[in-house]
Amino acid sequence: MADTEANWEEIVRRKRQIRADAIQEHSQHESKASREHAVETPFSPTSTQAESERDFTDIDHVEEITAAIQSGEVTAARLCRAYIKRLTEILFDEALNAAEELDSYFRQHGTLVGPLHGVPMTLKDQFDVRGYDSTIGYVGRAFKPAGEDAVLVAMLKKLGAVVIAKTNLPQSIMWCETENPLWGLTTHPENPDFTPGGSTGGESALLYMHGSVVGWGTDIGGSIRIPTHMMGLYGLKPSSTRLPYHGVPVSTDGQEHVPSVVGPLSRSLQSLTAVTKAVIDTSPWKLDPRCCPLPWRTDVFMEVQSRPLVIGLMEDDGVVRVHPPIARVLKAVAARLQEAGHEIIPWHPGNHHRECIDIVDAYYTADGGEDIRRDMLVGGEPYIPHVAGLVNKAPAVSVYEYWQLNKRKFAAQKRYLDKWNAAVSPKTGRTVDVLLTPVMPHSAVKHRECKWPGYTKVWNLLDYTALSLAAGAVSKELDPSMDSLSPYEARNDIDKWNWSLYNPEAMDGMKVNVQIVGRKLEEEKVLGVAAVVEKLMNT
Amino acid sequence: MADTEANWEEIVRRKRQIRADAIQEHSQHESKASREHAVETPFSPTSTQAESERDFTDIDHVEEITAAIQSGEVTAARLCRAYIKRLTEILFDEALNAAEELDSYFRQHGTLVGPLHGVPMTLKDQFDVRGYDSTIGYVGRAFKPAGEDAVLVAMLKKLGAVVIAKTNLPQSIMWCETENPLWGLTTHPENPDFTPGGSTGGESALLYMHGSVVGWGTDIGGSIRIPTHMMGLYGLKPSSTRLPYHGVPVSTDGQEHVPSVVGPLSRSLQSLTAVTKAVIDTSPWKLDPRCCPLPWRTDVFMEVQSRPLVIGLMEDDGVVRVHPPIARVLKAVAARLQEAGHEIIPWHPGNHHRECIDIVDAYYTADGGEDIRRDMLVGGEPYIPHVAGLVNKAPAVSVYEYWQLNKRKFAAQKRYLDKWNAAVSPKTGRTVDVLLTPVMPHSAVKHRECKWPGYTKVWNLLDYTALSLAAGAVSKELDPSMDSLSPYEARNDIDKWNWSLYNPEAMDGMKVNVQIVGRKLEEEKVLGVAAVVEKLMNT
Repeated sequence: MADTEANWEEIVRRKRQIRADAIQEHSQHESKASREHAVETPFSPTSTQAESERDFTDIDHVEEITAAIQSGEVTAARLCRAYIKRLTEILFDEALNAAEELDSYFRQHGTLVGPLHGVPMTLKDQFDVRGYDSTIGYVGRAFKPAGEDAVLVAMLKKLGAVVIAKTNLPQSIMWCETENPLWGLTTHPENPDFTPGGSTGGESALLYMHGSVVGWGTDIGGSIRIPTHMMGLYGLKPSSTRLPYHGVPVSTDGQEHVPSVVGPLSRSLQSLTAVTKAVIDTSPWKLDPRCCPLPWRTDVFMEVQSRPLVIGLMEDDGVVRVHPPIARVLKAVAARLQEAGHEIIPWHPGNHHRECIDIVDAYYTADGGEDIRRDMLVGGEPYIPHVAGLVNKAPAVSVYEYWQLNKRKFAAQKRYLDKWNAAVSPKTGRTVDVLLTPVMPHSAVKHRECKWPGYTKVWNLLDYTALSLAAGAVSKELDPSMDSLSPYEARNDIDKWNWSLYNPEAMDGMKVNVQIVGRKLEEEKVLGVAAVVEKLMNT
Repeated sequence: MADTEANWEEIVRRKRQIRADAIQEHSQHESKASREHAVETPFSPTSTQAESERDFTDIDHVEEITAAIQSGEVTAARLCRAYIKRLTEILFDEALNAAEELDSYFRQHGTLVGPLHGVPMTLKDQFDVRGYDSTIGYVGRAFKPAGEDAVLVAMLKKLGAVVIAKTNLPQSIMWCETENPLWGLTTHPENPDFTPGGSTGGESALLYMHGSVVGWGTDIGGSIRIPTHMMGLYGLKPSSTRLPYHGVPVSTDGQEHVPSVVGPLSRSLQSLTAVTKAVIDTSPWKLDPRCCPLPWRTDVFMEVQSRPLVIGLMEDDGVVRVHPPIARVLKAVAARLQEAGHEIIPWHPGNHHRECIDIVDAYYTADGGEDIRRDMLVGGEPYIPHVAGLVNKAPAVSVYEYWQLNKRKFAAQKRYLDKWNAAVSPKTGRTVDVLLTPVMPHSAVKHRECKWPGYTKVWNLLDYTALSLAAGAVSKELDPSMDSLSPYEARNDIDKWNWSLYNPEAMDGMKVNVQIVGRKLEEEKVLGVAAVVEKLMNT
């Protein structure tokens, strides 16, 4: 039900109160459940003891979780409770009910319901879950529960996943940080003065704190890759049409120019691959008309793990230069690959990245901010500064002008594909397999300092597959101090701003990821190459 | 070079003169070539004799042509000349040069360059061919030759096809007939008072007259299926992203709401399948960024030919009732399928078709006609009545409203997919494989009487695969006379108009096709089912 009568602060108060009550109620339930646990467990004393000894929220791999459930080491309900303990957002009684149903099924049949049986998952507050709001960070969307589950949510449940919570995101989702007047500010778990990035920032912070095993976010310009980069997690932005978007409301809903996509986030690359494969194996095209009927290609996933790769290394996109730790980590990954026999060839951005970024920026304001304004009018809450800037940036264009912008996009996509086809190894004549690039020009920064997702949003315009992979961290020992650097002649205002943020003392220990990029609908290839990289980094 | 100074009539005169000169020049060249032929042929007297006896323009199957070339029965150049003799549009010297190069290659290597070696093909005047105009029926696009071949054209050439001509289409392509002030009116080969349909009308008329083996058209609302229906040919409208569109200019270029697609037309279903497979086997996604990396699936193509099918039969879309011969031919196909052991279940359109048609109609005028107006301003020629009506139909909408229309589209797509999933055989529990529907509510009609492509454009909005298949003809003996029909209570103005067109005496012998529809990107399935249907119809 809409609640346009109440002022926005009252809605915020009531919404947060419901969350507080749910936590309170659950805490009591949890104590009661713990007392009853000895009675309801079907397991031997040994496994019960193991449960009390082991913290199951330390398991990062989906397959390890299902194996533990299969072996009887833990139950879905027990695992669900362990995770709920760590949660800070709205809780779901349904989660526990679902977990108990899964346990009951397992007791009865001795088999798991699917490859994600009992795996606790969380969702950015954008995925429709029947009976719950999808706020997208807007007050005006509070108290308007979804009528049915998003296609992805229904699929995950069918695969056995237990959805335990929905997490925070920025007002309108159109920002690479996480703040809105409804739920407030999400901070970086390592330092409250820092942002966790965004827009899937709540999901990443929760994963980092072991509040979930797999999170699901959306990415229209870097929203999965940026927060995973800032917390050393793993995040996949597939090409559009690969994973089902149906039932996921979004700002600028209905636009097709730069498709927002759904994708998983996790603490483990294995989990990222497992859930991506599990969803694709469910044939999403049968339920989401926008999906393309491309089955999971194990052969591609394995093939790239079996031979020397040709990797294009892009150290700089020619627009905003990266901070020294970003360059250092990227180079270290490239060096490790080269040592292992893979071929690294330089990838020169030319003017391509600047061109793509200009087109994306023109799209973001194509409706003159009308979509966001309408949502803001319903709630009446104040704009966060970034969103205020966005809606006032440019007037709406006409539909005809919009089509001309699409033509520019198609031309840019063609030029980039031609560039890719021309990038062949001088040694073997093989075409570049993937690109290795930075995710952001900086590691986590202070709140409201994130301004420039150029290294990520290019791949949204091209609709390429991109993965954010944990690779290192800022180190005040290894990285040069600001004072030791020679004066920097900035290329433009954003470049100047970015350089001014560098502070290895304050950023010490903040994670740094790298980005692996494949062409359109090359999810198996990108996940396979990521497995190669990760194995090398851990040996 | 633009030629905005000259008035449009002068441009038309010059353009037609160039065509006339080319025909003239070629006729002389042809006489000369005929004289020289005995010298240049590498074949035995027997095969030379066979050439002079056989009319190679009677071969409809691509594979039969390549086999004839392989066996030495004919050369690519000889075949090319035979086809050029039949042409009425601009001719290509390049075609003969290409054919002679192919023959030279074959003489040298004894193998064909590819699966389409020497196969004469023609293109709707919309595909870019280096050095030639793509007019789209606009005077203002005359004398502006394309800088490079469209991706599809380049692929066809690489596969060995010989592109011999480009064919007529309506001004702006946004009509289901074929007329423009630049090239004039294209008529139905069986009756000059009748339209061949459109917008790929020139291609279909030429194929019908054996002026080409395979034609390539585009389809945004029925433009491949409608003219093939009116001349008993075969035409495939694939889903978007399956075949490469890059390098094919179109009206409302840049719109992504209802993607125009390219597809083949032919006199033979085998040829339709052969060229579709050949293009997909060339991996179009490596050259066109909009293509999806879905290889040709022989297993799907064969599987549907090996078992009883479940076919949804839609006799009426609930909006415009079809003429008696259309209903008769459709029912006959369904009966033949049922006799052969396939299951026919009724497909009730409900309100779905009306809804989809309304959305498509809103899209067609989303820019208030600006795109077409701009093209018309360049040339200054008069509007054909249909296009005048289109650009004046409704004012432009805002980008925000346009996005709301897209949301309606996504919702309609989802409802249709759910409907499809729910359509299961009561006997076997299998989901419907394909739908069998009319192509048009009428057979070929008189010029300017074509108004309603509702049976075709629904599948463009849904982006489903649809194929037009030769199935019968109007018969004044078999079909009821207008007088013998009971008075018809029309559902709406278009329905009334359509019913008033029925005239079995005048339409006698005009072809009637049926449409086979599969879901998104199910080209192999639809072509496979078409093979089943065609085999049954011919036994």
